[in-house]
Amino acid sequence: MSNYAIGVDIGGTNTKFGIVDREGKIIEQGRMLTNAHDTVQGFIGDLYEFLLPMIEKIGGISQFAGIGIGAPNGNYYTGNIEHAANLKWKGIVPLASMLQEKFGMRVKLTNDANAAAAGEQQYGCAKGMKDFITITLGTGVGSGIFINGKIVLGHDGFAGELGHTIIRPGGRLHKGTGIRGPLEAYASATGVRETALEMLEQQPTLPSMLRDIEPADLTSEKVYECAIAGDKIALEIFQFTGQILGEALANFVMFSSPEAIVLFGGLTKAGDLILNPTREAMEANLVQVFKNKVKLVFSNLKEADAAILGASALVWEED
Amino acid sequence: MSNYAIGVDIGGTNTKFGIVDREGKIIEQGRMLTNAHDTVQGFIGDLYEFLLPMIEKIGGISQFAGIGIGAPNGNYYTGNIEHAANLKWKGIVPLASMLQEKFGMRVKLTNDANAAAAGEQQYGCAKGMKDFITITLGTGVGSGIFINGKIVLGHDGFAGELGHTIIRPGGRLHKGTGIRGPLEAYASATGVRETALEMLEQQPTLPSMLRDIEPADLTSEKVYECAIAGDKIALEIFQFTGQILGEALANFVMFSSPEAIVLFGGLTKAGDLILNPTREAMEANLVQVFKNKVKLVFSNLKEADAAILGASALVWEED
Repeated sequence: MSNYAIGVDIGGTNTKFGIVDREGKIIEQGRMLTNAHDTVQGFIGDLYEFLLPMIEKIGGISQFAGIGIGAPNGNYYTGNIEHAANLKWKGIVPLASMLQEKFGMRVKLTNDANAAAAGEQQYGCAKGMKDFITITLGTGVGSGIFINGKIVLGHDGFAGELGHTIIRPGGRLHKGTGIRGPLEAYASATGVRETALEMLEQQPTLPSMLRDIEPADLTSEKVYECAIAGDKIALEIFQFTGQILGEALANFVMFSSPEAIVLFGGLTKAGDLILNPTREAMEANLVQVFKNKVKLVFSNLKEADAAILGASALVWEED
Repeated sequence: MSNYAIGVDIGGTNTKFGIVDREGKIIEQGRMLTNAHDTVQGFIGDLYEFLLPMIEKIGGISQFAGIGIGAPNGNYYTGNIEHAANLKWKGIVPLASMLQEKFGMRVKLTNDANAAAAGEQQYGCAKGMKDFITITLGTGVGSGIFINGKIVLGHDGFAGELGHTIIRPGGRLHKGTGIRGPLEAYASATGVRETALEMLEQQPTLPSMLRDIEPADLTSEKVYECAIAGDKIALEIFQFTGQILGEALANFVMFSSPEAIVLFGGLTKAGDLILNPTREAMEANLVQVFKNKVKLVFSNLKEADAAILGASALVWEED
């Protein structure tokens, strides 16, 4: 009986890996530098050296259902990492098949946002749900969508880029894509910082603790600290961010009618400051049939564990 | 071998029904008034009287795989029509199970927008596709979404209300829902008419053939006629409508990465006048990975046949 899965989360700097049981307990874990390896072969060799003693400690390969990988630009259909901007391995890297050969286990691979959604379904607050959406509010805005019990991949494997959906046509420029008004330009740590700079400039006479912070040091965390201290502009920033996020969530609900939307990532630390305006704006923009139905919740997975858990959860997904 | 399906399209005024083969040929068809019947029992009795001779002509019930129904507020999961505003039968009507008992055939039911999508997949330009979206640009804006080869229903059966997604936050009021800025307020026959009235008022000195039409008679067809005659405001109206529709389609693409988007309904008669600006705005708002990939096409099903075909296609859907 295979009761364990290996989860590998490949980031631009670090790769985290761990052995996870069916209940989402991380039994063993470790990390290595991703870009210390110029070739993917070198990376795989080192990963094998790290994991082998852990695998043997648990009782060998027969105890394992497989390996799940979350990686930038990871394509579930092909098992390839395709043109990942922040990895040294260029072009198309057939990582899943290479790992399968090295470890002699089934390997599944997708991008980190889809892996996060799989983690929520397997171990988190979307446990057992067939239809839900996870939104990661970090430096950017990531998303993973489940419909009919499966990750939505689209015809080419690239579905679920909700951070790039336009919510303010003609609005704030997204520097990475050159497109105006996407959700990510507002409802991310970067977006909150930009909103802060804009609001401080637009209301030059309104006193704010935010003015004491060097613009270069103005982060979403700082905005949060000022907001809980009662700063008017800081509170307004979260109100504005939640308004935009809530409108976007309403659109997603009217697309796929999920049972829940799970929010994850740095901005969720703002708690009710972000959750309340988000929920209010979402409900206000839903037509009747969807109102007061969708569970809008914060992830209950520990941020430190979530990436490994999400990757490992891919192993338990139905094909 | 069951080579035939019955399609029944229930509208507020007329119910159309027909016998369809696997290739989408309508072998027999007819229509009856929906609201001539105060009770659903009376409606079913008459429908049976109409259909029985057709069924016997084909060779009896054994020739049929089942009955598919498109109906307002039709819920696929339950087979019920739920609180349809424009039908006389109030509350929850278990139509699928009632028809199943009467005809002794398997019955599937959904709303008309989902049925239209099923028709495109079975017989139309989304034939064999697993991931696509149909958008009906009629009096309102309807939508049906396929993901992984199945109609997207959501956890409650109400998914796919893309006409209600917000594309101009704080924009034009949707009189039916009381919400501002949804796609349906712009990219529908009603929306085109409103855009025309607005533009004529905003540019009072610009000559336009549209000014010769009584406001009460100003329809999207009239705008189309003036546009092909070269009228500047009429052309601008389609440009504006396409711009908004294209932005909305970009958002849908970044959600589910469909292989195609199929446009259907009255507004598509405007041909390239609507298609070109729509495609342009869609592509301009897509991030790189989605660009120049999605087929944006008009339905190739005859408008008169599409409702019966769509309903019948439900019978061939996988469960």
